[in-house]
Amino acid sequence: MEVDLVIIGAGSGGYEAGIYAYRRGMRTVLVELSPDSVGGNCLNRGCIPSKYMRHGAYLLEKFEKMDRWGILPKGYDLDYRKLMEGRDDVVVTIRESFKKFAAQINLPILYGRGVIKDPNTVFVEGAEETIKTKFILVATGSRPVGVGNLIPDGRYVVDTDQIWDIDFIPKRLLIVGGGAVGVEFAFIFNRYGSKVTLVELQRRLLPSDDIPEDSGRYLGRKLKQLGVEVKTKTTLESWEKTNSGVRAKLSDGSELEADFILLAVGRSPNTSGFGLEELGIEMDSKGFVRVNEFSQTNVPNVYACGDITSPLMLAHKAMYEGKIAVNHMLGGRDWKREDRIIPKIIYSAFEVASVGLTEEQAEDEDREVVVGVTSFVPNPKAMDDGENEGFVRIVADEDTGEILGCHIVGPHAGELIHQIVHMMRDHKDVEFASKSMYSHPSLSEAIGQSASEIHYGPITWVKR
Amino acid sequence: MEVDLVIIGAGSGGYEAGIYAYRRGMRTVLVELSPDSVGGNCLNRGCIPSKYMRHGAYLLEKFEKMDRWGILPKGYDLDYRKLMEGRDDVVVTIRESFKKFAAQINLPILYGRGVIKDPNTVFVEGAEETIKTKFILVATGSRPVGVGNLIPDGRYVVDTDQIWDIDFIPKRLLIVGGGAVGVEFAFIFNRYGSKVTLVELQRRLLPSDDIPEDSGRYLGRKLKQLGVEVKTKTTLESWEKTNSGVRAKLSDGSELEADFILLAVGRSPNTSGFGLEELGIEMDSKGFVRVNEFSQTNVPNVYACGDITSPLMLAHKAMYEGKIAVNHMLGGRDWKREDRIIPKIIYSAFEVASVGLTEEQAEDEDREVVVGVTSFVPNPKAMDDGENEGFVRIVADEDTGEILGCHIVGPHAGELIHQIVHMMRDHKDVEFASKSMYSHPSLSEAIGQSASEIHYGPITWVKR
Repeated sequence: MEVDLVIIGAGSGGYEAGIYAYRRGMRTVLVELSPDSVGGNCLNRGCIPSKYMRHGAYLLEKFEKMDRWGILPKGYDLDYRKLMEGRDDVVVTIRESFKKFAAQINLPILYGRGVIKDPNTVFVEGAEETIKTKFILVATGSRPVGVGNLIPDGRYVVDTDQIWDIDFIPKRLLIVGGGAVGVEFAFIFNRYGSKVTLVELQRRLLPSDDIPEDSGRYLGRKLKQLGVEVKTKTTLESWEKTNSGVRAKLSDGSELEADFILLAVGRSPNTSGFGLEELGIEMDSKGFVRVNEFSQTNVPNVYACGDITSPLMLAHKAMYEGKIAVNHMLGGRDWKREDRIIPKIIYSAFEVASVGLTEEQAEDEDREVVVGVTSFVPNPKAMDDGENEGFVRIVADEDTGEILGCHIVGPHAGELIHQIVHMMRDHKDVEFASKSMYSHPSLSEAIGQSASEIHYGPITWVKR
Repeated sequence: MEVDLVIIGAGSGGYEAGIYAYRRGMRTVLVELSPDSVGGNCLNRGCIPSKYMRHGAYLLEKFEKMDRWGILPKGYDLDYRKLMEGRDDVVVTIRESFKKFAAQINLPILYGRGVIKDPNTVFVEGAEETIKTKFILVATGSRPVGVGNLIPDGRYVVDTDQIWDIDFIPKRLLIVGGGAVGVEFAFIFNRYGSKVTLVELQRRLLPSDDIPEDSGRYLGRKLKQLGVEVKTKTTLESWEKTNSGVRAKLSDGSELEADFILLAVGRSPNTSGFGLEELGIEMDSKGFVRVNEFSQTNVPNVYACGDITSPLMLAHKAMYEGKIAVNHMLGGRDWKREDRIIPKIIYSAFEVASVGLTEEQAEDEDREVVVGVTSFVPNPKAMDDGENEGFVRIVADEDTGEILGCHIVGPHAGELIHQIVHMMRDHKDVEFASKSMYSHPSLSEAIGQSASEIHYGPITWVKR
């Protein structure tokens, strides 16, 4: 078999790159471990099923407030298996649609492990096929990691590959790790009735440099208000099995019992077993594949995208890098990786979205910045929807007004942030954002208002 | 009293312009008929209370599907008075916050009718105050109109000023007019249990040149599916009072009874009684105040904004024009009215959002255009939320790729459309939109996909 491009891994990055390569006229082959793993972690064990469950939690939260719209519910029963069914239906539908579509456009998927033999040869173990190719894109993703004596077993210690098989609502749940995955499941299981304890080593939730402290704290307060026991600056000291689950001892001296421990402490890139070392592909000290601004490795016709290129393990980062790689293979030199415009979005009790620099990061770079913040509390559309919590925070360069970052907590933050992503991609300033058009009433108005806070100076809007 | 600017009317346009003038350092006075009408039609009798009720309808629709998230509700009761209370609470909260804020920043509101005596003098009837001023901004809004023998009486024939006082859910409701207001209330009362008949003279719902036929038809099908009787190409021939309400005869020969008729046929600008004619302010043949690109009338220091300047009666249009007027008063010449970037958003069974040209309008202008459409049906985020209906439709110039319009039907269309508004403001092309960053999963991805459909040519994505 001889093609233009072999893509190893048909997850978000590989699949999107495959479609894009097809669009651009390249003869392309996708290689994926098995028919069940097409779509990768995001589709099968990550963002898609978790967002489904999160919508259920969102609905359960709505239930508590419906009387304000004259709707007086008579209560409800929960059926966790129905939730699982609905969730898995969506996953399977998307996965099968993907495969069907690939077949329609003659984009073959070979099942097996793709191993690079030389820069122009990939051997697919399992399919036992040797493919000669001009280019290779490595998109092999990542896997959850354990920590210390927390070794995932699917029963007492459950990781994010295993949580999908849990078929009951835990009465008591201990989540270790207050990052994106931890806060998402804390909200989900809290709303479905679990008593959740969320333990985070750092002094706040979402302890990422890319997410301002305010966003993490605002979310933390909400989770507490909903009944999640949030313990920051805390670690799990030890744990043991009991008849009904686990007993855990925390670093603050407290002890608790739980049905199981959900481990959400991070992921490790899949860089072994694909022939990367053998080919001399350079990796950094943390084990990530080194790529340039075109997602190209040190072997010129081998590219990499997604979770294996940096700790920023986001599906859309993988998709973007994959397309930039394909564009570069075809001679494009103007479309480059730009981490600064990659939004990070968390779906918990609030949507939390960040793009670009926080104030702290800007200060670390010795940049003078100004900040404009607008609360959703008095936003008319948010009030109409009973979702008037959170804020929009824009960080701009003090001299030029260029928008350097934006951090949104609240309703539909994950969609709203795109307005700023597009502006930042084009290096727009707060004057542009301020003078643009925002419909009334809309949540988007808060973006224009935050930009105006910077461009015209702060106005003491109704503080609450 | 001597000031820089008198604004007649403290509705959306006047209030926003007042705040903006304050920001820009102008001594400003707002004149409004009464303390109860601050915020104007949008706040008191329009977009804000209707969006509140619409959220209730949205929740009721969610109720029917909750089992897919493992939530099995045991039914509900409806209490319309609680809905009214919640709604009016939001309106009053916003109105009082407005007033309090104006007081905090020393932006006076005089209550009474502002009448222009000469280009530098406004007399406020009621407050009996004469104000000398450098500039005047007229922002007097509009009022609902009757048609033929449909004269609003608040009982049998109810207009959009009166619907807020109706304190029961009508068993049967006849809505005359299938524009924005008609389809909003059709959805609201349908979900709250009314049998709704919606009559529209034109051959489709949302019969505006600015909204593509597809959007109106897609919404119409959904309303029918929900149980609304939609009758296009139909008029109300005659009606009479009965013991319980009205009996109506339609132009298709059918007869029906209803608790009352909701009249939603349009609005007329408020241009009388403010001294406009006396000052020689020019109006067009339809009675709208003629303004230039800076919202300036033919009397150089008198400006106008909002519903009195054109039939595009949208709060954000008024706000935008008001700020552009203030900017021009202060010497700004680069910020101009641009109707092409004003989004029109309808909140019914779907959100329907349009900005810029439709294909038909582009053809009428003899422009060659290309269209890219992406369905929300296979969109992963929309599937997760159980809201995977609708589409994103981008209209672009065939030669340059410039985005000329965008039309979205479906989840959060009213927020999503802003991404295109900002791009259009800056004359961006589909290549820009296609190569920007979209998080995964997100509804926003459909925007990037539609742009790619044009930039790279159509791809046969899974059609359903």
